[in-house]
Amino acid sequence: MTSGPHLTHLDATGAANMVDVADKAVTDRVAIAEGAVRMQAETLALILSGNAKKGDVIGTARLAGIMAAKRTHELIPLCHALLLSKVAVEIEPDDALPGLVVRASVRTSGQTGVEMEALTAVSVACLTVYDMAKAVDRGMCIDAVRLIEKSGGRSGHWQGR
Amino acid sequence: MTSGPHLTHLDATGAANMVDVADKAVTDRVAIAEGAVRMQAETLALILSGNAKKGDVIGTARLAGIMAAKRTHELIPLCHALLLSKVAVEIEPDDALPGLVVRASVRTSGQTGVEMEALTAVSVACLTVYDMAKAVDRGMCIDAVRLIEKSGGRSGHWQGR
Amino acid sequence: MTSGPHLTHLDATGAANMVDVADKAVTDRVAIAEGAVRMQAETLALILSGNAKKGDVIGTARLAGIMAAKRTHELIPLCHALLLSKVAVEIEPDDALPGLVVRASVRTSGQTGVEMEALTAVSVACLTVYDMAKAVDRGMCIDAVRLIEKSGGRSGHWQGR
Amino acid sequence: MTSGPHLTHLDATGAANMVDVADKAVTDRVAIAEGAVRMQAETLALILSGNAKKGDVIGTARLAGIMAAKRTHELIPLCHALLLSKVAVEIEPDDALPGLVVRASVRTSGQTGVEMEALTAVSVACLTVYDMAKAVDRGMCIDAVRLIEKSGGRSGHWQGR
Amino acid sequence: MTSGPHLTHLDATGAANMVDVADKAVTDRVAIAEGAVRMQAETLALILSGNAKKGDVIGTARLAGIMAAKRTHELIPLCHALLLSKVAVEIEPDDALPGLVVRASVRTSGQTGVEMEALTAVSVACLTVYDMAKAVDRGMCIDAVRLIEKSGGRSGHWQGR
Amino acid sequence: MTSGPHLTHLDATGAANMVDVADKAVTDRVAIAEGAVRMQAETLALILSGNAKKGDVIGTARLAGIMAAKRTHELIPLCHALLLSKVAVEIEPDDALPGLVVRASVRTSGQTGVEMEALTAVSVACLTVYDMAKAVDRGMCIDAVRLIEKSGGRSGHWQGR
Repeated sequence: MTSGPHLTHLDATGAANMVDVADKAVTDRVAIAEGAVRMQAETLALILSGNAKKGDVIGTARLAGIMAAKRTHELIPLCHALLLSKVAVEIEPDDALPGLVVRASVRTSGQTGVEMEALTAVSVACLTVYDMAKAVDRGMCIDAVRLIEKSGGRSGHWQGR
Repeated sequence: MTSGPHLTHLDATGAANMVDVADKAVTDRVAIAEGAVRMQAETLALILSGNAKKGDVIGTARLAGIMAAKRTHELIPLCHALLLSKVAVEIEPDDALPGLVVRASVRTSGQTGVEMEALTAVSVACLTVYDMAKAVDRGMCIDAVRLIEKSGGRSGHWQGR
Repeated sequence: MTSGPHLTHLDATGAANMVDVADKAVTDRVAIAEGAVRMQAETLALILSGNAKKGDVIGTARLAGIMAAKRTHELIPLCHALLLSKVAVEIEPDDALPGLVVRASVRTSGQTGVEMEALTAVSVACLTVYDMAKAVDRGMCIDAVRLIEKSGGRSGHWQGR
Repeated sequence: MTSGPHLTHLDATGAANMVDVADKAVTDRVAIAEGAVRMQAETLALILSGNAKKGDVIGTARLAGIMAAKRTHELIPLCHALLLSKVAVEIEPDDALPGLVVRASVRTSGQTGVEMEALTAVSVACLTVYDMAKAVDRGMCIDAVRLIEKSGGRSGHWQGR
Repeated sequence: MTSGPHLTHLDATGAANMVDVADKAVTDRVAIAEGAVRMQAETLALILSGNAKKGDVIGTARLAGIMAAKRTHELIPLCHALLLSKVAVEIEPDDALPGLVVRASVRTSGQTGVEMEALTAVSVACLTVYDMAKAVDRGMCIDAVRLIEKSGGRSGHWQGR
Repeated sequence: MTSGPHLTHLDATGAANMVDVADKAVTDRVAIAEGAVRMQAETLALILSGNAKKGDVIGTARLAGIMAAKRTHELIPLCHALLLSKVAVEIEPDDALPGLVVRASVRTSGQTGVEMEALTAVSVACLTVYDMAKAVDRGMCIDAVRLIEKSGGRSGHWQGR
């Protein structure tokens, strides 16, 4: 009805709404998101030394991200439930930040994209890193949580800068 | 046992664990967290024009943040459940970003702090903004999610830079 | 086995059971439900004046209804999980009640109907109205929560009186 | 600040908010709510004959109500989580309706009342009755869900008409 | 890559991961699991006499098992969400144990099996029996929770000893 | 009313009910539960070799158990919600089974015991082991899930055989 861009979650009267996806095609959809937790170099060293021995900060954050992806539709009010065929979360140290870089990729065969699932996985993995290291570094900061790439669906392939 | 800083979520053998809070004092605890969603100026204008009429992007994101705070312990593996006495989420536009700034404050009377609840509220509110505006701006970025201030508990008052 | 009407959720021995839907056709299914919150005229005026400015009682109740629809199978013991393709909740004032009328429509492509999702959305939206206005009017009453119309599936189109 | 009645869930600017209960007294609080499912006389007879043998429609609805009460704060956006010390749900037939009358009583020792928990228990028990009997009577109607009585807290004892 | 047996939930570097099921066929899948609660003969008699009258221990445990099956993917970190077309839980007394034998069968049409859903239903039904009878017999023991049979999917039919 | 043992979850008429704990003392309560996953020796060797490198089967199962303990009241219908002050899950190999032994200890300061939380943590940790190793050994069996010890509350200290 309008020719310019508009917010698909707002109906004609401006009220928030779930978009109707019943007529969208079921296609294979993938989304990749990324984010980072910036911290003091000493904090990163502590996490990695722990990790070298037991892998627990990174391992726990990975699992928290995977589990959160499955519950995205409970957290994001207008998000559709989807059956995810894969969620993968990778966490790598980056001495330059210094900190940890979190990357999630999510795949489904469905009628809506999985951007929110990938972004939720990244966010919750970052929050879990914060939780597990906050006793030594309350000033950690979660940064640059964003979509990196998506494919499938009407809008086709998209890649961030 | 160790004299230097250590990760309280890792036990002596390095395995992830919930910290035992049974012997901590029940005190009034407050935490304030903040974060932002950076977007194109046109996206912000669209959200605000929608907001001027119906308030739905911002209103929906506020509620999502409040509701997520109550479920923090389900998302963050080693986080204790708490009875929150207040959760408030404020979202303000910032033309300089351009984007929206999200601030959450959480209060409880309990044995552990509410930093994670405040950070979770901010993260999920930001994710909800992304969800509701992603159709016009997939390149939005969630930035600077961090603790601003906390009080209560053994560690007393803490304020970020 | 019996020729008269029977309760499909009770098996031959009378124990509660999920109906097996594996052999039902996947069809497009829609259900519309309605209900109302009756209140004092002054309460309605307060809600609407708030609504005229910020829309929050009605906006919050709409979102609560949408989010609850997605969790219907967690609440109703023998209800199947479904992927909903659309949930819409509309809330209109009715001076004659006086009160608010809540209408939910839910759509899916699946093997079971979405009556329960629509009725759950209406019920939780009504409960949320109650919660947000109870400080001024504890005597509010939720009334006439019922199915209005359904289509799709073996039983075809059905319309209430 | 205002002298007349106001909606405590709306802040000064009209935005939805959790009320801060940190300074409320911890008192013993009880709430009793009631509601009904009106149905055809034949449907009630079917449920009761099933009930005479196995009790499953009524038993299932009772459990669904009890379990839902514990999750009220997940469903109602601005509701505080509480530790409930008791939830009881009773369901009685009423030939005059004809239908089932559902009554829930909830008890806690806490800083906020349990009206919403009692009303949620009633609503979900009624929805469960609908779910289990809908195959024989789609026209059932949930009616008169309301607070009957509450005690505890600053507002003291309250009783509905 | 390796020719011997390996753990599909661990990737090449050993980190825990959801298996990608996107390329698996959608087939009709069934799983049957079983388990038992061993108890004192007096406890079993009490449950059964209660059961003769109202069926509540067994009825409650059956419902808890059915409801838990629907939430398996929330509990088991790397488990995929699935739309279950049927969950049935049967509980029978066994004087020889003495105790109760719990059997769950779960059916879906999907890309992964439902073993975990059947095993989760059995486990939670057993835990519920324990909860409801623990006041008279704290020494009860949950035993022999195992998969009995599965069909569908690439691995075809499997039957336990 | 009766002088012999009775099931506290059944009221006078035999219907299932949450026990009213409002008048119980708030005391420090601890419960320890244990269980085992029996498997083929080769399966245990695979898990442990994986564990030697990355710890993921055991680490994932530990986290799943901890997270499940926090949600016990959602799974067990008549269980009260509690604020847990500590949940610890330990998993040790046992060559004699052969298999893994899971032990959970849970602590709270509250009005009801935490037996169900400890037993739920053990059960879900065992289920997670099954999930992660089922591709190589479908015949694994979860055994001997039982309470080992409890303290606190009116019934005082209890220790299993």
